[in-house]
Amino acid sequence: MAELKTYKDLDDEAARHILRTATTKAREIGSNMNIAVVGADGHLKAFFRMDEAWMGSIDIAIRKAKTSRYFNLPTGEIGSLSQPGGPFYQIEHCNDGLITFPGGVPLKTKGGDVVGAIGVSGDVVEKDHEVAAAGAQYLLDN
Amino acid sequence: MAELKTYKDLDDEAARHILRTATTKAREIGSNMNIAVVGADGHLKAFFRMDEAWMGSIDIAIRKAKTSRYFNLPTGEIGSLSQPGGPFYQIEHCNDGLITFPGGVPLKTKGGDVVGAIGVSGDVVEKDHEVAAAGAQYLLDN
Amino acid sequence: MAELKTYKDLDDEAARHILRTATTKAREIGSNMNIAVVGADGHLKAFFRMDEAWMGSIDIAIRKAKTSRYFNLPTGEIGSLSQPGGPFYQIEHCNDGLITFPGGVPLKTKGGDVVGAIGVSGDVVEKDHEVAAAGAQYLLDN
Amino acid sequence: MAELKTYKDLDDEAARHILRTATTKAREIGSNMNIAVVGADGHLKAFFRMDEAWMGSIDIAIRKAKTSRYFNLPTGEIGSLSQPGGPFYQIEHCNDGLITFPGGVPLKTKGGDVVGAIGVSGDVVEKDHEVAAAGAQYLLDN
Repeated sequence: MAELKTYKDLDDEAARHILRTATTKAREIGSNMNIAVVGADGHLKAFFRMDEAWMGSIDIAIRKAKTSRYFNLPTGEIGSLSQPGGPFYQIEHCNDGLITFPGGVPLKTKGGDVVGAIGVSGDVVEKDHEVAAAGAQYLLDN
Repeated sequence: MAELKTYKDLDDEAARHILRTATTKAREIGSNMNIAVVGADGHLKAFFRMDEAWMGSIDIAIRKAKTSRYFNLPTGEIGSLSQPGGPFYQIEHCNDGLITFPGGVPLKTKGGDVVGAIGVSGDVVEKDHEVAAAGAQYLLDN
Repeated sequence: MAELKTYKDLDDEAARHILRTATTKAREIGSNMNIAVVGADGHLKAFFRMDEAWMGSIDIAIRKAKTSRYFNLPTGEIGSLSQPGGPFYQIEHCNDGLITFPGGVPLKTKGGDVVGAIGVSGDVVEKDHEVAAAGAQYLLDN
Repeated sequence: MAELKTYKDLDDEAARHILRTATTKAREIGSNMNIAVVGADGHLKAFFRMDEAWMGSIDIAIRKAKTSRYFNLPTGEIGSLSQPGGPFYQIEHCNDGLITFPGGVPLKTKGGDVVGAIGVSGDVVEKDHEVAAAGAQYLLDN
């Protein structure tokens, strides 16, 4: 039989816990966030727009999650490389539009497998990143 | 002072209950569904892709929810009007792509206000509609 | 540790064999084909446009492969359900454009895991399907 | 009879050799790359995503190949002209999205005919360019 690869992916329970953890963090810091989770395949797994969150951030949260999974990097790190003169200048034009400022974080298991990503948008980028990081921490703690 | 409009909208708790009610129904009937909820403004409020749900149905569930809210009708009713020779033939080309087969249902309060819509995709359209209707029923029962 | 799902996916060797098997079949029947393979994640894994193949079929082959993986069905079966009056009428408007006539086939292991899909375009749809099916057969024979 | 133009183009064998040469170079330097080849007409001729290559680089590799063929220049040279204040500032907005950092190289015959381009993405841009250049070298050596 042909040898194939195997990979790990989020399941329903993990996705729900990640979303809940991020939402709880957002409430703690008083931010109304859009929170998106994509699976290992880069496609949307779960999403929640908190009451009063910016309407324009729905799409940003989803793009941050996808951007982070596409390159297995926090979005802010990609953005630091896409500045004028940087090696990835204008990378945002690929994949139907990336978002490369902070708020997207890969979801990794304790063992280091990338099983998806989380994208958060709704406040200043430091807070977006803080909430995304809190969501990503769930898998490392459980 | 200018008199302006007020409107009712889903809040976080209602969105979460609707999503949970629909997911529970999907499990009961043994279907792996993508479930999308849009608010009164027609933009995504909450989304969940159940394990093993069709990858191509992520987008369909979201479009069904939007299509239903755009016209305040179940998607299947729009689809019956968009057949060849029908009054809305090819309406699917507007709004960057509608989905007009069953599985999208407006979310209404007991008082009759439309406060959003739910879109479900992942099985035959009768089951998609059944799960969407179960989600919509939550607001009528509470 | 959080329990997650594991999945199988094509590896380089399997993708290359599938592409070669399909290309060989295309030559045997005298057709110049575009042949696309997507992985379990639904994203492009390998592609080849044979000399003299239709330029417009590059995109069709890729969309057939994606369409087939999105719903884990041969594209022709989806197309038979998307006719006027059918349950999936106008489904082609989702996912940025589906192709629902024959030529896309899921890639399954002997054990029944869907690990991707193959899409073929360049001749009449019966021949497109024949070449796609030959490519998909590789995994069942090895 | 009207005199028309003739032009040279990649054939199946050349495309396959170029792809293989680039893949071999990628393995030598330990990079998991997405590699795209476009023909003289600027449309996709062949593509391969190596195991573990970034999902987001599929689209980048294809855009690098197209960008390079569109202007018959290495993509990095275009990028040096598209910086703020440069003569091609924001050129990335044309053709549905260019990628202008290194990794795309025109494919030329020994006689100097441009017969396509190769685009590579999956590592730092210096390595992307190195692999693309190795692929392009095939035609100059054979």
